[in-house]
Amino acid sequence: MVKVVKFGGSSLASAEQFMKVGKIIRAEESRRFVVPSAPGKRFPEDIKVTDMLYKCYEEAEAGKNFDKLLKTIKERYNEIIKGLSLKLSLDERFETIKKQFAAEAGIDYAASRGEYLNGIVMANYLGYEFIDAATVISFDKEGNFDSEKTNELMGQRLKNVKNAVVPGFYGAMPNGQIKTFSRGGSDVTGSIVARAIKADVYENWTDVSGFLVADPRIVKNPRTINVITYKELRELSYMGASVLHESATFPVRKEGIPINIRNTNKPEDIGTMIVEATCNMPDCVITGIAGKKGFVSISIDKDMMNSEIGFGRKVLQVFEDNVISFEHMPSGIDTMTVFVHQDEFVEKEQKVLAALHRAVEPDTVELEADLALIAVVGRGMKNNSGIAGNIFSALAKSKINIKMIDQGSSELNIIIGVRNKYFEDAIKTIYSVFIPEDK
Amino acid sequence: MVKVVKFGGSSLASAEQFMKVGKIIRAEESRRFVVPSAPGKRFPEDIKVTDMLYKCYEEAEAGKNFDKLLKTIKERYNEIIKGLSLKLSLDERFETIKKQFAAEAGIDYAASRGEYLNGIVMANYLGYEFIDAATVISFDKEGNFDSEKTNELMGQRLKNVKNAVVPGFYGAMPNGQIKTFSRGGSDVTGSIVARAIKADVYENWTDVSGFLVADPRIVKNPRTINVITYKELRELSYMGASVLHESATFPVRKEGIPINIRNTNKPEDIGTMIVEATCNMPDCVITGIAGKKGFVSISIDKDMMNSEIGFGRKVLQVFEDNVISFEHMPSGIDTMTVFVHQDEFVEKEQKVLAALHRAVEPDTVELEADLALIAVVGRGMKNNSGIAGNIFSALAKSKINIKMIDQGSSELNIIIGVRNKYFEDAIKTIYSVFIPEDK
Repeated sequence: MVKVVKFGGSSLASAEQFMKVGKIIRAEESRRFVVPSAPGKRFPEDIKVTDMLYKCYEEAEAGKNFDKLLKTIKERYNEIIKGLSLKLSLDERFETIKKQFAAEAGIDYAASRGEYLNGIVMANYLGYEFIDAATVISFDKEGNFDSEKTNELMGQRLKNVKNAVVPGFYGAMPNGQIKTFSRGGSDVTGSIVARAIKADVYENWTDVSGFLVADPRIVKNPRTINVITYKELRELSYMGASVLHESATFPVRKEGIPINIRNTNKPEDIGTMIVEATCNMPDCVITGIAGKKGFVSISIDKDMMNSEIGFGRKVLQVFEDNVISFEHMPSGIDTMTVFVHQDEFVEKEQKVLAALHRAVEPDTVELEADLALIAVVGRGMKNNSGIAGNIFSALAKSKINIKMIDQGSSELNIIIGVRNKYFEDAIKTIYSVFIPEDK
Repeated sequence: MVKVVKFGGSSLASAEQFMKVGKIIRAEESRRFVVPSAPGKRFPEDIKVTDMLYKCYEEAEAGKNFDKLLKTIKERYNEIIKGLSLKLSLDERFETIKKQFAAEAGIDYAASRGEYLNGIVMANYLGYEFIDAATVISFDKEGNFDSEKTNELMGQRLKNVKNAVVPGFYGAMPNGQIKTFSRGGSDVTGSIVARAIKADVYENWTDVSGFLVADPRIVKNPRTINVITYKELRELSYMGASVLHESATFPVRKEGIPINIRNTNKPEDIGTMIVEATCNMPDCVITGIAGKKGFVSISIDKDMMNSEIGFGRKVLQVFEDNVISFEHMPSGIDTMTVFVHQDEFVEKEQKVLAALHRAVEPDTVELEADLALIAVVGRGMKNNSGIAGNIFSALAKSKINIKMIDQGSSELNIIIGVRNKYFEDAIKTIYSVFIPEDK
C-alpha cells in the first residue's frame, strides 16, 4: 500500500505541530510521500509565512529594504528547526532568496519559498529525500499547468524512490521560472503526486476532521460526512463549502484514487473519505447542505414563448455576450427566469435588459436582487420520494418563502432559492429535518 | 352593455339545442352579436357537419359522385329548420356549394360551409342580420390572419348594426378565396368580433360549465374554476387542459375584455370568467392542475460545467439546430437536464447525442423516456410558502417519485416531472391536497 500525505499550513505551523505530523507519518510505512504546505498560523492573530513572503516581496519590488521582514520569516523556520533539534541551516537558502528578491524573480517565486523551505525542513526531520517541485511539476509557456507532462516527469522521478518530500503549491515553466497554483494549491500538488505514483489513498491532513454536513458558522456542531463522492463534493464546494482546493480532486479522480481528509490534531478521527462511487449510503439521506448569497433573478415573460424555437438559446446568448455566467434557468410556461451572480450583473444590468428586449422582444422583464441559493446534496436522495416534501414542509413551517426550486433528473441535489435574509434560517431548518440531534 | 355570444357545435347540433340557444340570447338584450359554429354531434356516435363536409369534398376532389353525401348534410340543416318551423330554404345555397365543390374551390371553402349555413339558419331564427365572415375577416396573401385589417373592417361593418350573426371559423384572402382558422377556430371569431365592437363580455357557450380544476377523466367530478386569469389559462391550456381554442384569448386580451365560458345546457351555472387580472383569489389556493405525458429528459454531466460560459447556450443551440423545442432545463451543479417532447426527439436521438458531444464535450449524456410533466397553476400560490411542501409530502405519501421540479420566481406555477405511469395518480394526489371534498 502506498499513501501520499499532504499537510496543511496549520499542521506545520510550529515544531510541536511538526512532531504530530512526524508521528502520523511514522505510524504507517505506507505514508511514503509527503507534501507540505508553508507554515500557517500558530495562533489566531499570527501571520502565515506565505503572507509574510508576499509582503516582503512587495517591499523588495518597491525598492525598499526588506531585510527585517525576511529575517522574521527566517526566524519562523529556525524556531521549528530548533524545536525539532535538527542539524540544519537555512542560511545559504535565505541568501539565495534575498538575491532573487532583489533581482525581482517574480511574485510566484516569492510565494513558493514558504513550501520550498518547509519541504527542506520536513525532509531533514523525516530523513526523506527532498525533491524540489520545480523539477517535477510543469507549467507551459503561458503558465497553464501541464498535467500530462507533469504526470510523466513525476512518475519517472519517483519510480525508484522509497520516501520523499515534495513541497506543495508550485512548479516551474519551461524556462525554469517558478509558477504557483492558486492559493491553497498544495492540495493540488498532493493529488498530482498521488496520481503519478498510483497511490492507494491520498491523505489530506488539515485542522478539521473532514467535511461537515453544513457550515459550522450557521449550524452548531454539524456532523462530519464520513463518505462523500467526488460529484457530491464538487456540488457542495461549488455552493460554498470549502476544505479542499477546487482543482485538487481532478488528478486523483482520473485514477480512481480516494482522498481521505484527516485531522492532524485528532488523528484518531477517521475523517471524510472522498470516493468515485460507493454503495455506502449516508445515514441521514442527505450528504450535505451548502449555499451562497448574492444572486439576482431575471424573469422574462412573453406570450407563447414556449412555441418559439430558439427563445431560451437567445436569452442565454445575451448573458454570454455580456460575459455573465448563469446559474439556473427555471422555466414555467411563457416565463423563464435566469439566476446570475449579483456582482457580475449589477453593473451591466441595463445593458442586459436592452439586449434582452432586442433579442427576444419579451412582454416584461422583472428583476429581483438579494437572493440566495441553497443546494441540498446527497446520493441517498435518488429514488427517495420523501425528500422534497420534507424540505418544503419544514421551510413552510419556518415561514420561509421559496423563490425557486430546481431539481433535475439526476436526483443528486435540489437547489432552492430564498431571499438572502432567510439564508441561515433555511439552512438550519433543512439541517434539522434530516439530521437527528446527537446526544 | 354589449355581449358577443359564441355557441359551440354541440350547442347547435339540433333544433332542440337551437331553442335553448334562442332562449339564452333573448334573455338579455345585450347579447347582440352571435357567432355560431357548425352543427356538432347530437349523440356520441353522430358525425359533426364539418367532418361530413371534409369527407364530401374529398370525394368531389377524387372525381367521385358526392351527391349523396351532400344530401345528408342538407338533411341535417333541414331537420333543424323544420324543428324550428322556419320559412327558409337552403336549396340555392346548396346548388352553389355543389358547383364550388365540383370546381374544387378548396378544402377551406368546404370546411367553412358548416358555419356559413348554420349562420344563415341562426340569423333567420333570431331575426338578426346575417354577415358573411368572408366580408369581415381578412387573411393576407400567404394565408396568415390579418388582425389589424380585420379589426378595422369588422369595426366599420358592425358600427351601426344592432344585432347580427357572424359565422365562426373562417374569413377570406384578398382574392376572395375562403380561408379557415385551425379546428375550433369559431372561438377565435367570437374573440375578434368582441374586440372589434369593444364588447363588455365575450360569452363562449359550450357543453361544459367552464374550466375544471383538473381533467375529469382523471379526477372524479372536479370543481369548476370560477375566475381564471389569461396567464393561468394559457399555462393550463399549454399543459393539456382544453376548452377554448389556443389563439382565442389574444384579440380580447388586447382590449381587456373578459371571456365567460358558459354551458348551453345549464345556463344557470355562472361558468368560468377569464380575466386579465383580479383581486378575487381562488378558495383553494391553486387554480388548476394540468399535464402531459410523453417527454424525454436528456441529462448532461460535465465536470466544471458551471464555470464554462456559454455551456447552456451551446446545448440549446443543438436542440434548435435539430428543430426540437425544449420544455424545461433544470440544472444542478455540473449537470443540466433538458426536457423535450418524446415524439419530436426519438427519431433524431442519435443525431442530437452526437451533436451534443461535438458542441460541449460532456462527460456523460443520459436519456430517460416516458416522463410526464404536471403543472400546478395558481395566482394564489404567490407568497404562500406552504404549497411546495404540501404537494411533495402528498406525492411522497402516494409513493410517487419526483423526476423533476421546476419553480421559477414567477411563483405562478410549479412544474413537476414524474414517470408516465404515475401521471394520473400524481394529479389525483395533488387535487386531493388542495380541494376539499364537496358534500
